[in-house]
Amino acid sequence: MTLEILTPVAAIAALVVAGIAARLVLKEDQGSPRVREIAGAISVGASAFLKRQYTTIWAVIIVIAIVLFAAPGWGWQASVAYIGGALSSTIAGFLGMRIAVRANSRTATAAQSGLEKALNVAFRGGLVMGMSVVGIGLLGIFLVYTWLGVPTLILPYSFGASTVALFARVGGGIFTKTADVGADLVGKIEKNIPEDDPRNPAVIADNVGDNVGDVAGMGADLFESYVASTVAAMIVGVVAYGINGVTLPLLISAIGIFGSILSVAFVRVKKGRNPSYALNGATILSIVFTAFGAILISANLFGWSIGFNLFVAVLAGLISGLVIGLTSDYFTNNLYRPAKSIAKEDQSGAAIGILSGFSIGLLSTILPIISIAAATVVAFSTAGFYGITLAGVGMLAVTGMVVSTDAYGPVADNAGGIAEQSGMSEDIRKITDSLDSVGNTTKAITKGFAIGSAALTAVALFATYQQVTNLTKLDLLQPSVLAGVFLGVGVVALFSAMVILAVGRNAYKMVDEVRRQFREIPGLMEGKEKPDYAKCVDIATKGALRELVIPGVVALISPIIIGLILGKAALGGFLAGSIVVGLLFGLFMANAGGAWDNAKKYVEMGNFGGKGTPTHAAAVIGDTVGDPFKDTAGPSLNILIKLMSMVALISAPFLIL
Amino acid sequence: MTLEILTPVAAIAALVVAGIAARLVLKEDQGSPRVREIAGAISVGASAFLKRQYTTIWAVIIVIAIVLFAAPGWGWQASVAYIGGALSSTIAGFLGMRIAVRANSRTATAAQSGLEKALNVAFRGGLVMGMSVVGIGLLGIFLVYTWLGVPTLILPYSFGASTVALFARVGGGIFTKTADVGADLVGKIEKNIPEDDPRNPAVIADNVGDNVGDVAGMGADLFESYVASTVAAMIVGVVAYGINGVTLPLLISAIGIFGSILSVAFVRVKKGRNPSYALNGATILSIVFTAFGAILISANLFGWSIGFNLFVAVLAGLISGLVIGLTSDYFTNNLYRPAKSIAKEDQSGAAIGILSGFSIGLLSTILPIISIAAATVVAFSTAGFYGITLAGVGMLAVTGMVVSTDAYGPVADNAGGIAEQSGMSEDIRKITDSLDSVGNTTKAITKGFAIGSAALTAVALFATYQQVTNLTKLDLLQPSVLAGVFLGVGVVALFSAMVILAVGRNAYKMVDEVRRQFREIPGLMEGKEKPDYAKCVDIATKGALRELVIPGVVALISPIIIGLILGKAALGGFLAGSIVVGLLFGLFMANAGGAWDNAKKYVEMGNFGGKGTPTHAAAVIGDTVGDPFKDTAGPSLNILIKLMSMVALISAPFLIL
Repeated sequence: MTLEILTPVAAIAALVVAGIAARLVLKEDQGSPRVREIAGAISVGASAFLKRQYTTIWAVIIVIAIVLFAAPGWGWQASVAYIGGALSSTIAGFLGMRIAVRANSRTATAAQSGLEKALNVAFRGGLVMGMSVVGIGLLGIFLVYTWLGVPTLILPYSFGASTVALFARVGGGIFTKTADVGADLVGKIEKNIPEDDPRNPAVIADNVGDNVGDVAGMGADLFESYVASTVAAMIVGVVAYGINGVTLPLLISAIGIFGSILSVAFVRVKKGRNPSYALNGATILSIVFTAFGAILISANLFGWSIGFNLFVAVLAGLISGLVIGLTSDYFTNNLYRPAKSIAKEDQSGAAIGILSGFSIGLLSTILPIISIAAATVVAFSTAGFYGITLAGVGMLAVTGMVVSTDAYGPVADNAGGIAEQSGMSEDIRKITDSLDSVGNTTKAITKGFAIGSAALTAVALFATYQQVTNLTKLDLLQPSVLAGVFLGVGVVALFSAMVILAVGRNAYKMVDEVRRQFREIPGLMEGKEKPDYAKCVDIATKGALRELVIPGVVALISPIIIGLILGKAALGGFLAGSIVVGLLFGLFMANAGGAWDNAKKYVEMGNFGGKGTPTHAAAVIGDTVGDPFKDTAGPSLNILIKLMSMVALISAPFLIL
Repeated sequence: MTLEILTPVAAIAALVVAGIAARLVLKEDQGSPRVREIAGAISVGASAFLKRQYTTIWAVIIVIAIVLFAAPGWGWQASVAYIGGALSSTIAGFLGMRIAVRANSRTATAAQSGLEKALNVAFRGGLVMGMSVVGIGLLGIFLVYTWLGVPTLILPYSFGASTVALFARVGGGIFTKTADVGADLVGKIEKNIPEDDPRNPAVIADNVGDNVGDVAGMGADLFESYVASTVAAMIVGVVAYGINGVTLPLLISAIGIFGSILSVAFVRVKKGRNPSYALNGATILSIVFTAFGAILISANLFGWSIGFNLFVAVLAGLISGLVIGLTSDYFTNNLYRPAKSIAKEDQSGAAIGILSGFSIGLLSTILPIISIAAATVVAFSTAGFYGITLAGVGMLAVTGMVVSTDAYGPVADNAGGIAEQSGMSEDIRKITDSLDSVGNTTKAITKGFAIGSAALTAVALFATYQQVTNLTKLDLLQPSVLAGVFLGVGVVALFSAMVILAVGRNAYKMVDEVRRQFREIPGLMEGKEKPDYAKCVDIATKGALRELVIPGVVALISPIIIGLILGKAALGGFLAGSIVVGLLFGLFMANAGGAWDNAKKYVEMGNFGGKGTPTHAAAVIGDTVGDPFKDTAGPSLNILIKLMSMVALISAPFLIL
């Protein structure tokens, strides 16, 4: 029983590490006045967006909290837990963001002292987000569980995190791509000025977007997966194995935190070696640490025989996470054939390059789909539904490391932007560029991880759903179940379309505004006059807030409608349909988008004629198509499949009636 | 019992109508020597491709026939029935093609006597294909059933049709888009010469492609759906209702033929009215005729009470077919908002237009998915699994009319090409253009119909699968079933990617060859020298034959592997997963492709600046992306989902062991 203390200890350790990392970042030199000015604009824009976004989110949260209060099966404790979950995710997001937007200028400045120092600053900036997510998440679960004592009653805490994640991912995703597409289409393509050029009116909005999308949005997404997979395992575990079944997932999460903290010590650049080895090496190390810890914990709680079986389930999750990450890397990294082949086909024009990326995106889903299916079967065969939920816990145990690595990306990206805008020298630009390119490699892996973990979390929630609703079977030969699967597939298509259309609509407005500024502000192109950055930030903000409501409501309401009209079995089919297609679409969009992006970079490295050629123009079109795929719609699907399962679980009490 | 004679009578009536239509087409004026020469080149190219394609197909067919001979549960009768099915589909395809490639020059020549006459010739050309499909199909089922006496034993006949359809659709689809993309990329975009210009080396290959893809491929596709849905209903019906359960689907198919023949009389153009009303009106009329006939037949066989329930199932199929067709029309026709909005967004560049079309394609799937789900639930609730199979029969009863209308399209398209290449006057070009634009409207509806019917046929085969394998449930809570669903989803992604990549690879070669001819043949651009058409036809032919093998083998083998490794329940999940995602992808690809195509045409009509503007260039890129979607991958998915269900059924005897 003494082992249980590890849970709060690990959570607090994570928060302490986050605090230290934050202090180390803030201690660094803020840079020249020009650097501070740019960083200030990014910080102000990001904070303004987040404040307005969270205001919208919290309006919805209060409504749902009231509904929970009155809903059959729930009550005031549920409302409090729900608000607690939402608050936890909000705080983690705010903390991570505040440091990320301060780390960017300091990274740019540190680049003047060399690559290693800059990497350290940028990585510590990301570490705050990573450690906040797991620290606050695990502490929250621990506190709510200590208070209420029954795993099922923690569900609302997790649901609160889901609600925040939905809006943060969708809103952040729409914001970031509205700004990015707007900046690229006019700046790069029509005006032929470089990325991050200060003359581009949308450049600050673009930098803000990196933070609100890739830091806050990603953080909220993985916060949700982390909490939901742990809670799912606790709910299924208490029925299967009593109190030990609850303790195991908590301890695996704790071990994952310790493993991540230990691995952080290894993030060190070796001379002449690609820095991405340091980051990806640390991720793999944390997986190994966690696996070792997991087997010891399982054996301690359950004895070697059962313990080993449970460990196999955990391992199945860890391994499938790794497979998905590496597959994403292969299909998107321009060191390998797929991205290169897109660049080659771009020589025949944009259409052929797009078709090629489309196919590569589809191909990239096969191995991950097989590995998720295999993890499900293996975990079930060793430990039943509990095994499936443990696979999710295993995969997500290293969330702290993954989020740190991922949040590093936008910090490095922003640092590059600040170096460019403040006119730093070519040498420093090279260092920030190399930091940025590392970010792109780690991003592919962490993005694949986010999708895979979302799918496995959703499968775990699906396993929980059958238990909570007392379903003994979910028979595809019942037409209502088959119809549910059809509709689950349909809702993924609908949601994806709505989100992409939202980006298109907003980007259209942004393009108009950027064109207007270039036309109407005299001396802008010559660099004599400053553009109106705030106006562009404002367009992206308003558009994102307006557009996140309808997809959000669809995600929240559709499971309830299906459940009420077609019954709980059909709702089970609906969830299954949405999970499988959500995984397919999520992976496809992330990897197709990543491959187009890196194909473009491959051309820009001087291949097939390099910049300024028709091949490059074709590659840029592919990249622009891929942007909302990989940064808006794809990540939003992670949330969709988890959230709909969560809504089904929360509404189970009145579906059983 | 006297009613039963209607089945062979209807089949023979269809063949008589096909014969009359063929004679009427052949009687028409073949046109000037130049017209004959072009039509001859198209005809020779098409025949050469079909002969080589069918040689490849028949090699596979003979292997499968030998396997069937030795397989547990089957024997020499199965081999004979299988070969019979393959032969029937081959003959229907050849007959339809022979007349279609003869109708094109005659339509172009008839256009000199006005729109009405030209429409009649083109429609009769299509009618031969339509009537051959239903006549040969129904006669084949009738003969094999009379011979073997047991519905299950006819399965191999249907499997033969599936095998031919697989290769005809995939091979034809790759051929047609290799040629089309090759012709457009160099001819239209680089050299700026019009569509169908005789200086374009790929122009004959492009015209050949229309025939082998849209006539022979489409015919084989619907031949398969037609036969498979009837056979599925016979198999399920004999268990549920004895001999009457077998007679009903045969008679509904017969009634559908009579309804189609009657409706043909209404294909008449009214002055000043869009000729598409005539074609679509006839389709709707044939649905009404068939519905009336179906209720009379059901009541006669089963009495009013049961008969009415069965009729409701048939009606559910007919109505969902109509809903899918009309939805496709709405989302692709440039009379309506979706296609226009793509054209509008093309003003912001190709990438935004592509994203917009991508989203519209996804949105277009929602209503069809709901209507297939609703048809399944309604049909099941009135008549169990038999009802589901009857919904398929109902939808496909009007296949004769649908294929006729669809095959009209490429005849009209080719007629336009011949008019252009033979230098006919502007007035005649206008008439063939208007015939062609009618073809595009009807094509959207018939393409939606083909996908919807494929999905409903696959669902019917899925219902048959549970009966043949004695599955009492197909439980998504069994991880192997869930894994099966995941893998079914994956195989659709894999197959789509392979087919699109095949087009990309071949188009790349075609582009090279066309560029080479423009570069190396002096006087080509000035029209003084003829290009080497045959070389382009050859590239498309060889590429298509090489590329159809691997996807074909994947489709044939994967269900057997899943069944052997994971068991018959997992195979059921695999089929369900492939059907739902196959429907989603099939509809998405067909409608996104159609919408991009018509958005481009909308710009070419002079909107948003018309031809030669950046908006037009963007629209052309969208259209090129959409080409392999709508004419290769999308239609191939129809086949994939039906064929995999068919393979599962055929291999059921040894999976039960």
